[in-house]
Order: sequence, then structure tokens, then C-alpha cells
Amino acid sequence: MKKINEEDTSIKISPEEIQSEFYKILLKYGFKKRKALQCSEIFTQNSVDGVYTHGVNRFPKFVQYIKDGWINVNAVPSLKSSVGAIEQWDGNLGPGILNALHATDRCMNLAQKNGIGCVALSNTNHWMRGGFYGRKAAKKGFVFIAWTNTIANMPAWNAIDNRLGNNPLVIALPYKDDVIALDMAMSQFSFGAMELKALKNERLQVFGGYNKKGKLTDDPSEIIESKRPLPIGYWKGAGLALLLDILAAVLAGGLSTYEISRQKAECAVSQVFICIDLKKLNNYSLIASTVNNIINDYLQSSPVNKKEKIIYPGERTSANRKKNLQDGIPVLKSIWQEILNL
Amino acid sequence: MKKINEEDTSIKISPEEIQSEFYKILLKYGFKKRKALQCSEIFTQNSVDGVYTHGVNRFPKFVQYIKDGWINVNAVPSLKSSVGAIEQWDGNLGPGILNALHATDRCMNLAQKNGIGCVALSNTNHWMRGGFYGRKAAKKGFVFIAWTNTIANMPAWNAIDNRLGNNPLVIALPYKDDVIALDMAMSQFSFGAMELKALKNERLQVFGGYNKKGKLTDDPSEIIESKRPLPIGYWKGAGLALLLDILAAVLAGGLSTYEISRQKAECAVSQVFICIDLKKLNNYSLIASTVNNIINDYLQSSPVNKKEKIIYPGERTSANRKKNLQDGIPVLKSIWQEILNL
Repeated sequence: MKKINEEDTSIKISPEEIQSEFYKILLKYGFKKRKALQCSEIFTQNSVDGVYTHGVNRFPKFVQYIKDGWINVNAVPSLKSSVGAIEQWDGNLGPGILNALHATDRCMNLAQKNGIGCVALSNTNHWMRGGFYGRKAAKKGFVFIAWTNTIANMPAWNAIDNRLGNNPLVIALPYKDDVIALDMAMSQFSFGAMELKALKNERLQVFGGYNKKGKLTDDPSEIIESKRPLPIGYWKGAGLALLLDILAAVLAGGLSTYEISRQKAECAVSQVFICIDLKKLNNYSLIASTVNNIINDYLQSSPVNKKEKIIYPGERTSANRKKNLQDGIPVLKSIWQEILNL
Repeated sequence: MKKINEEDTSIKISPEEIQSEFYKILLKYGFKKRKALQCSEIFTQNSVDGVYTHGVNRFPKFVQYIKDGWINVNAVPSLKSSVGAIEQWDGNLGPGILNALHATDRCMNLAQKNGIGCVALSNTNHWMRGGFYGRKAAKKGFVFIAWTNTIANMPAWNAIDNRLGNNPLVIALPYKDDVIALDMAMSQFSFGAMELKALKNERLQVFGGYNKKGKLTDDPSEIIESKRPLPIGYWKGAGLALLLDILAAVLAGGLSTYEISRQKAECAVSQVFICIDLKKLNNYSLIASTVNNIINDYLQSSPVNKKEKIIYPGERTSANRKKNLQDGIPVLKSIWQEILNL
């Protein structure tokens, strides 16, 4: 594989310029103004937060999906059923970002009324970065738990072929003037992360999968070749991925990983959102100090290596935001050119 | 470490005999009849299901906790607050099994009324095997999601000292005439499992932690010595463990892992139970076939090794039940003697 130096080919572009370019492109592909604004903002903010894989870098693929007809740009979700604190919505193959935003809003609304709320969404598209919705709900004072199923991209435990999705799980809640937000797929590394490492000729930090000979390996090229990425915790992550898929399909009345995988593209996925309104709880006034105390204790951990700071999930985001807002968002020249050509 | 052969010292005892012995002992330690019956049944059934570590093998420790005053045998949970579909209960340091049973019942009740329900329980004791409550709710047609925090027994990522609990997470739902039930701690292996392997002079199946030199190892003795077990998926399981602890403490208004760890014993833990009543959903009539189809596809995975069957979470339980009901429950002679002396 060719060795590249990312720095050589990376340029810095202001969030405003990126968002404005996205907005123009989305209008061109049929988005209404308000929706083009929302989508372009979230793609941009994901990159500001440092999640480039589901921000700027993913935008060309999103547009390709629109061109190929997998995403109905102006479809809106429709309510299928409502029972108590649960709503089931059909995403009607609209843009995954807008459907997930809608589901998050509905879910917070249900939680405001019932303490806890659940929205299950069928027939939707990739939400890009689940952490975005988690952060949004957490900033408004909610506990947020959500997951999505995906195309099959990971084997069951003791299996060779991919029949499980890596089904990202998001958990977020308020913390100080920010949030704690965990956003994790069930695979140890995404294929995107492994491809980047492979291009740079780097090894993974830990084993990331099996090679073709069935040996655990930290060589990303070998895993890309074998298509056998490792679930987190081996049999445990595989089990959790299976359960998240079943619950998504069952609760949303939507497609499961094996059905998604039989289509020609990863679309019509199923998602579950659960919100809890912390303000409704009797102990609300104590919650901020409970969270502070836990994080304070956690951050007092003795580091293995003093250079590696102990951080909580989502902590890097603030630093990324600060840097990217100041310096601009790093974008590979080739990707920016691809976007300008859309 | 001394090498043992478990088979040499293991005897088979009928579930009836075990339960009857537990019942007598619990009466002796002050349990009311109905509670002694419930507790003795669950300890026995956990062993029938093959979860010996949280069945018969754990019973002497449970009694020791009673003797030491950590468990109030006749305390009952009291309602702290109720808002919509959420209830917060104080476990009043009663037996963890009985508190968890109560929370599961209340949670199913809330789900029957609201589609989804949540019970958060503070000040409770070890629930032994969370999968028991998951199976119970799933058999009644509910999705069950629950977790507990624990004493600190796992380091944060990049840390040496234990400030996280392994905080088991349970997810269960109905499947055919049985259930699918995932019951997983956030550590790759429990200390109980590692101690057993060490006694048998066996290696772990995969890396289970770091040794004193900071190297990943599959030697259980080295991990017991270093006290650095591995979270599932390294930083991911550590992050999930942290979030589960925060949510348990916040939602229950109870103690968090760092507070539990400052006590002289692992007691007054916090737990969260979430149930969804599948019968309430519009697509209820299709759910059984959705789950069947997913599992059918999953079980068609190509095995790495034809001797290792692909199984779904909880599948082993039925086989264990059948064998143990027929042959009796395997119990180490020394443990049975310890129980008879209680």
C-alpha cells in the first residue's frame, strides 16, 4: 500500500466556508432551504468537533447516495404509532441526519411528559455521527441513549463471514457547561480508521481483527483483506451488536442488519432513541454534583504513562472545537476538490 | 499456584436438596418464609442455569454479608419518587435479589401502562445474576435492559489503579418459547473466572489484562497479581463502564462506584431497570418472526472451527438447565461442606 503523509495534502478551511459550500450543493440537489441549512450545519459541526469521518470526509458519499436515489431529500418522517411514552416513526428514506434530529426532538418531548421517552425510527438513513444528537439532548438536560443498526460488517464470534453490524451506541448526559458523550461502534476499529492507518503504513494500537490465516493482528491491511474486524471484547461485543440490531428492528418495526445487507446500499436502517428528563427527577438539584464527583475521582486515576492524559468520553471534543474554530478545519485537498466538483 | 482438578472434588446435588438447604439456612438467619423461599429459589436456579459463580458458589459469601450486617434481611424497598414512567426506589440495604425482583416487577408494571418504564434503585445489594431478572421479564413479553454498578475493580483506560466498576449490563427479550439474554460485565474476564483458570493452571482464551510490567497477558495469575484486568474493547469498555456508573448513581440518586469502594464491603449499589412492553407495539404480531429471522441468519454464520458452534447470547442456558436438572448441580465438595456448616 502506498505511504502517504496526511499533512502534505491537508488544507485548513473555515467552518463558514465549508458550511456555505455544503448549503449550495444541497440546494442544487433539491433540498429545501431550511433542511439544507440543518444538514450543512451538522456535517460542518461534526468536523469542527473532530469527527472528520462523519463530517466533511463523508459529504461526497452522502451526495452520491442522493444521486443514486437512496436518499429522498425532501421526505419527512411520519408517525406510525404512539403508545404512552413510545412513538414509532417511519423515516421514509429521508436524510438520516434530519430524521435523527426529528426523533431526538420527539424523544425529548416524550421524556418531558413521561420522565422517560422512546422513539423508534424505521426506514431511515445513516445518521452520520450519533454523538451529535446525544450532545444536543444532553445540553438540554436529558440523558440520551440511542443506537442504530448498520449493514453487516463484522462476524459473529467464532465466525468468518460478516453477519453483524457494528451498530454504534451513544450515551450522553450533561456535565458542567458541556456534556459527557460516549459514541462507540461495536467493532474495535472502523474500516475508515483502519484504511487511514494502512495508508500511513501504521499499526493499530491493539489487535483489530483476524488476518486471512486466522491470527489476531494489529496490521490494518491484513484486516481489510480478511474482512474480519474484531468486536470489542470478542464474544461480548458480538453479542451486544446482535442485541442492538434485534432491538432496533423489533422496536422500530424496521429492517435488521441482514435485511439491510441484502440491498444494494446501506439504507433503510433502524434506530432507537431513549431520553430521560433529569429535571423531572426528585434528586435533580444533586445530579450535577454527583456527576462532578464521579468525574473528579475518575480523573485522579494514576496514568500508566504520564504523557497519556486520562480523559472522559467526549472530552476531546472541546479541544477539537477550539482548535478547528481558530485554525480552520483540516481537509484533504483531494476531498475538498471533490466537494467543489459536486 | 497449586494445580487442581475440579472434577475430582465436585459432587452432583439435586436442585431440590440445594434449595431446601438454602431455605433452612435463610430462615435461621432471620428471613421470613416467603423471602427465604424466593432467595433460595433464585440462588438455586442460577446454578441450574449454569451460572455457578452467582448461584451455589456465592451463597456462603451472601450469608457472610448477612452475618457482617451488610444486608438487612427483612428490609423492603421504599418508593422515593414517581414521575410518569419512572420510579426511584430505596433498597434500604435489603437482599439484592429481592430488591431486584421488586424493581423488575415495578418496571414491567410501568411498561404495561406507558409502553416503556424505568425503575432506578439506590441503596441495594448485589443482584447476583442480572440475567435472572432479564429472563423473567423477557418470558413475560418484555424487552429488558438493566445494569448495576459495583465496587471499583477495573482501571480507566491508560490508568493503573482501579476506579471503574465492571458494571454488568443485561439485555433480554423473548425468543421462541425461550429468551435471548445477554448478561455481560465490562471487564473481559471476571476475577472469579481468572482465579478458576489460575487454579487449573490454564491460560485465558484471549488477553485478559496487563501484568505488573505493563504488558498485555493471557496469564490469569499475572492479572490477579497486577490487579489490572482489561475492559472489553480497551478504551470503549472503560468508557461504557464509566457511563453506566454515572447513570446508575444519577438516576437512582444512589452511590457511585467510587463511593461504594470507600465502604468496607460492596453494598449500597445503584441499579437501573428499563422495560418495554412488546405487546403494546403496533407491530407486535410481527415481532416473533423478526427475531426468528435475525437469529436464523446469524446461526448460518460460517464457523472458524466446525467444533465451535455459533450460539446466541443465553443459548447455553437451556442445555445447562437440561443437564443439571437431570444429573444434579455440580458443586465443589468443599463449598457444599461450607454451606452445610452455615
